[in-house]
Amino acid sequence: MKRIGLFGVTGYTGRELRRLLAMHPDIETTFATGSGHLDHELGLEREADAYLLALPHGIAARFADTLRGSWPNAVVIDLSGDLRLPSAESYRTWYGTEHAAPALLGHVPYGLTEINRKQLGGAKLISNPGCYATSVLLPSLPLLREQLVSPNGIIVDSKSGASGAGRAAREALLFCEVDEDLKAYSPGHQHRHVGEIEAVVQQHAGCEISLTFCPHLLPVKRGILSSLYFRSETPPEQLVAALRSTYAGEPFVRIVEKPPRLQDVVYTNECHISVHAGASGNVIVFSALDNLVKGAAGQAIQNLNLALGLPEKSGLPVSLG
Amino acid sequence: MKRIGLFGVTGYTGRELRRLLAMHPDIETTFATGSGHLDHELGLEREADAYLLALPHGIAARFADTLRGSWPNAVVIDLSGDLRLPSAESYRTWYGTEHAAPALLGHVPYGLTEINRKQLGGAKLISNPGCYATSVLLPSLPLLREQLVSPNGIIVDSKSGASGAGRAAREALLFCEVDEDLKAYSPGHQHRHVGEIEAVVQQHAGCEISLTFCPHLLPVKRGILSSLYFRSETPPEQLVAALRSTYAGEPFVRIVEKPPRLQDVVYTNECHISVHAGASGNVIVFSALDNLVKGAAGQAIQNLNLALGLPEKSGLPVSLG
Amino acid sequence: MKRIGLFGVTGYTGRELRRLLAMHPDIETTFATGSGHLDHELGLEREADAYLLALPHGIAARFADTLRGSWPNAVVIDLSGDLRLPSAESYRTWYGTEHAAPALLGHVPYGLTEINRKQLGGAKLISNPGCYATSVLLPSLPLLREQLVSPNGIIVDSKSGASGAGRAAREALLFCEVDEDLKAYSPGHQHRHVGEIEAVVQQHAGCEISLTFCPHLLPVKRGILSSLYFRSETPPEQLVAALRSTYAGEPFVRIVEKPPRLQDVVYTNECHISVHAGASGNVIVFSALDNLVKGAAGQAIQNLNLALGLPEKSGLPVSLG
Amino acid sequence: MKRIGLFGVTGYTGRELRRLLAMHPDIETTFATGSGHLDHELGLEREADAYLLALPHGIAARFADTLRGSWPNAVVIDLSGDLRLPSAESYRTWYGTEHAAPALLGHVPYGLTEINRKQLGGAKLISNPGCYATSVLLPSLPLLREQLVSPNGIIVDSKSGASGAGRAAREALLFCEVDEDLKAYSPGHQHRHVGEIEAVVQQHAGCEISLTFCPHLLPVKRGILSSLYFRSETPPEQLVAALRSTYAGEPFVRIVEKPPRLQDVVYTNECHISVHAGASGNVIVFSALDNLVKGAAGQAIQNLNLALGLPEKSGLPVSLG
Repeated sequence: MKRIGLFGVTGYTGRELRRLLAMHPDIETTFATGSGHLDHELGLEREADAYLLALPHGIAARFADTLRGSWPNAVVIDLSGDLRLPSAESYRTWYGTEHAAPALLGHVPYGLTEINRKQLGGAKLISNPGCYATSVLLPSLPLLREQLVSPNGIIVDSKSGASGAGRAAREALLFCEVDEDLKAYSPGHQHRHVGEIEAVVQQHAGCEISLTFCPHLLPVKRGILSSLYFRSETPPEQLVAALRSTYAGEPFVRIVEKPPRLQDVVYTNECHISVHAGASGNVIVFSALDNLVKGAAGQAIQNLNLALGLPEKSGLPVSLG
Repeated sequence: MKRIGLFGVTGYTGRELRRLLAMHPDIETTFATGSGHLDHELGLEREADAYLLALPHGIAARFADTLRGSWPNAVVIDLSGDLRLPSAESYRTWYGTEHAAPALLGHVPYGLTEINRKQLGGAKLISNPGCYATSVLLPSLPLLREQLVSPNGIIVDSKSGASGAGRAAREALLFCEVDEDLKAYSPGHQHRHVGEIEAVVQQHAGCEISLTFCPHLLPVKRGILSSLYFRSETPPEQLVAALRSTYAGEPFVRIVEKPPRLQDVVYTNECHISVHAGASGNVIVFSALDNLVKGAAGQAIQNLNLALGLPEKSGLPVSLG
Repeated sequence: MKRIGLFGVTGYTGRELRRLLAMHPDIETTFATGSGHLDHELGLEREADAYLLALPHGIAARFADTLRGSWPNAVVIDLSGDLRLPSAESYRTWYGTEHAAPALLGHVPYGLTEINRKQLGGAKLISNPGCYATSVLLPSLPLLREQLVSPNGIIVDSKSGASGAGRAAREALLFCEVDEDLKAYSPGHQHRHVGEIEAVVQQHAGCEISLTFCPHLLPVKRGILSSLYFRSETPPEQLVAALRSTYAGEPFVRIVEKPPRLQDVVYTNECHISVHAGASGNVIVFSALDNLVKGAAGQAIQNLNLALGLPEKSGLPVSLG
Repeated sequence: MKRIGLFGVTGYTGRELRRLLAMHPDIETTFATGSGHLDHELGLEREADAYLLALPHGIAARFADTLRGSWPNAVVIDLSGDLRLPSAESYRTWYGTEHAAPALLGHVPYGLTEINRKQLGGAKLISNPGCYATSVLLPSLPLLREQLVSPNGIIVDSKSGASGAGRAAREALLFCEVDEDLKAYSPGHQHRHVGEIEAVVQQHAGCEISLTFCPHLLPVKRGILSSLYFRSETPPEQLVAALRSTYAGEPFVRIVEKPPRLQDVVYTNECHISVHAGASGNVIVFSALDNLVKGAAGQAIQNLNLALGLPEKSGLPVSLG
């Protein structure tokens, strides 16, 4: 049994980590705490094989840095946005503040498991992807890499359940404000996840993209459905073939025929993807996942399994298929 | 007081017509019935100043035809899709069946009130627009007409509440299938409303468009939010100016700054529109309306007011602004 | 046109007042403001025929007192709980704080319109009932007054939509905490509305009751459904007869056969009531209303109409029946 | 690995069985089928260690009977209501039809695991309790058995998510009919589960009860919250003590302090119970569970574990506590 320490248990991601870890056959949670005061806390009772950080950005980088110093043999997985961008400058641009541990940037493997598996096995520090980025990158990277779609004029219309906005008591997240409503927010090119997506595409598909990204707040608890519109003259069947080839044998990514539903993926670690013809010159790609599982806690455990040498699927729920 | 007869009261549109007509100060509902057997029913007790048809397509055209023959001085407003397309051939393409009264096609004014007001005053037969088409056309027509956006590569990602799918007892519409879910359906170029939108754009903006249209089923009762992505090099401010100019003084169309919310428009006859910059070369336009009000029963009453010479705003709810 | 001033517009009740007043044919809203600083504000620009107070309790009593001093000919309707209890002592018991204007208590007519109409016509200060109390008192008072049910062992199991809890940004009211959930709160004899209900029953039915009251937070925006369980040997038909007799001719109270649904009453000023046999010696009574309309803003306008000599139904929505 | 055959996979209970069985470490699902034609199907490919029947009542009894004849060593667990009542006469009263295999009645252990565990270990045929009955009996039986509450005048106000009503395409279960609504149905003494509850109380607590039972349809997918009102002079602390004593060491029943929430029990096999003082002479008891898990599929697997000699908790999710 591997011993895991969990920092940040009060938010929805922290709670989901606890829920999933409780079902994991090879892991025991040694401690689970709120953010607290890191420095006084790193006594022996905090020793563990791995640490999961479900902390606010800004704080997370400090914790990651300190933990790596104190327990150099342990695995640290950061679920915040702190280690996702390639440089301190990029961080400043998208987060509007200085990075707390800039020396870490540029060296941390990005935990989009299916794309970056080689770098994750045995890694000591992993940056877990954002939920929106996961939903956009899994369908996009194979298509961009093989130049089956244009890197220009990409439109992504994403819809996320309210747990993606966190558990802070804000009026805009009250039941009466979200229920029976739908609205876009930060439309265009303003959302932090655009920076993350662009950087990962550049690194893993080798191209610069022009991306219009519109997230919407959906009156559901969980789930992200992203509708991606690419410029492409390639027949949809070829796109399907490329996706099937990339994800053949993957336990958590499925290429489906009909547009995927949130219902089929929530409470699982799966991402479902489909491809459809648009009007001439356009192709539509849908992806659906659970923002708290494949978009956060589940993918973190998938990466944790790899980093600790456990079976990658261990403890992770799948759909009925 | 004008006397109105209502055919088709069991569906959600029929019920909404009853709800709105009950609050209308200048109208009394003389009768409201299910679809029934038209021919035996057109006795004197069915005489009215106007008839509203909230009937299934196929049946509606027959009713419209018969009513016009029997009561030539009455106004008939058809809320089905039967009179929205320009020709029997187009109807066959999109509905997969022969039209029941093809002689009517091509001569019926299209009831998108703000765009077509001149033809609606005093009209005896009006085709009420579809809910999706209203949400797409109100923001698009001014921009296309003035060539501020490209007619090519238009992407529309629409999300509709479940009442838009009607009241038929289908498994896919059960609470447990819709609640906490989201899915696209008929993506690409397959949905009937694409035919309607293309035809109206051609007639009222004088151009052919290339449109990729993706409707989604949303876990709310009412409301459509359409996210429109245009190719455009025009600064968003100019698009806003064009929309403000077109809709200046309109009581039911508002150009807003922030992305519109369903909550602000449901239970009103309003359509809210906003414009935002996308990535370079792209612009985002949102529109929000209540599919049962501005997208159906409310716009029908707006047209009815015009056709009967009543104040256009009479009996129609507005938002708090 | 009567001129109305509205204090407290940011909460859900204030917003509903604005929505309903906007549709009222005989009233214009002269001003609508947040709570602000009353004393500096009572200049001539605040003169009105009536004031509606949608303010937090504690503050409301001070406003009522000051407004009555400054504008003795105006009508003041308080929608808070400040004027509902009969004495300062009772207020202290249920609210845990001193009353701000104890001299007002004991003299303010209670605005349960159908029960207390005589005292409301021409009144200058009215205490508008709570939403839970309205849902319990309308069905209970006739039955208790005529001794058709026992005053002992009354069980009320109430379920309220989230708008009843107000618009404060509290974690417990976040979408993710309320959606797909149900829970009771303050069960037993602890809820403030118990004090209100007991006092009104004593005054208007002349008896002391023993009441077990359990409110539940429901994942809907609007509506209260109260399930009342009485000890009674009277056949249910007699209870129905008594209710029908009390509410004969009332435009906003309907005795229905099947258990009432929230859907039939939300967005209307109606209360629907039904009676059903329980096991031997028990009878079940349901009541349904919209907590923001008949339970707050709608009933306030109903009382306002009476106090100003307008038609009681003016501006108030009814159901389709 | 035990081999399980599942009859009835299209409904919500069948789907939940599949979901839970997929996570079970000691069980493999040999086949899962719709109801089909039993007689032709019982070839060797249907041999299994146990059969789970998620079939409509009426059909289920026939399947149970045939399976027992064909595979006498296998375990059969019936999730329908067919084997819950003690006699053919009682079945006729509550279901309005003749029983298909009356010889089975009176001999089948009732699978309320915590109460009836002794009879379930090694049993070959088990009748799985109804969801409402489970939510009522777990809190009631200890209190009635020890005469801490009166058997007379019991009020149960239950609220169930829509999955409890099944997956049939009925208008009353459409999203637009259930969302933002609440209503009672079959109030009083009419609901089938009253017969089940009365019979089990008589057998396991040795008393006849007088029960007023009101189920409500809740706009959530999963979960039952039952509010039970007993006549009792016993201090609530004593009731809590009796419940704690009965359920000490039980992995799936928790006595909690605050009123339980659906959110804490859905997707788990737990039932949470709390006790609160009512007005004098009355006590309130809440119970919460997931109707598809502890109220159906989860409890069936709990019983299956016992019958097959597996660890009782195997494969069953618990809450975070």
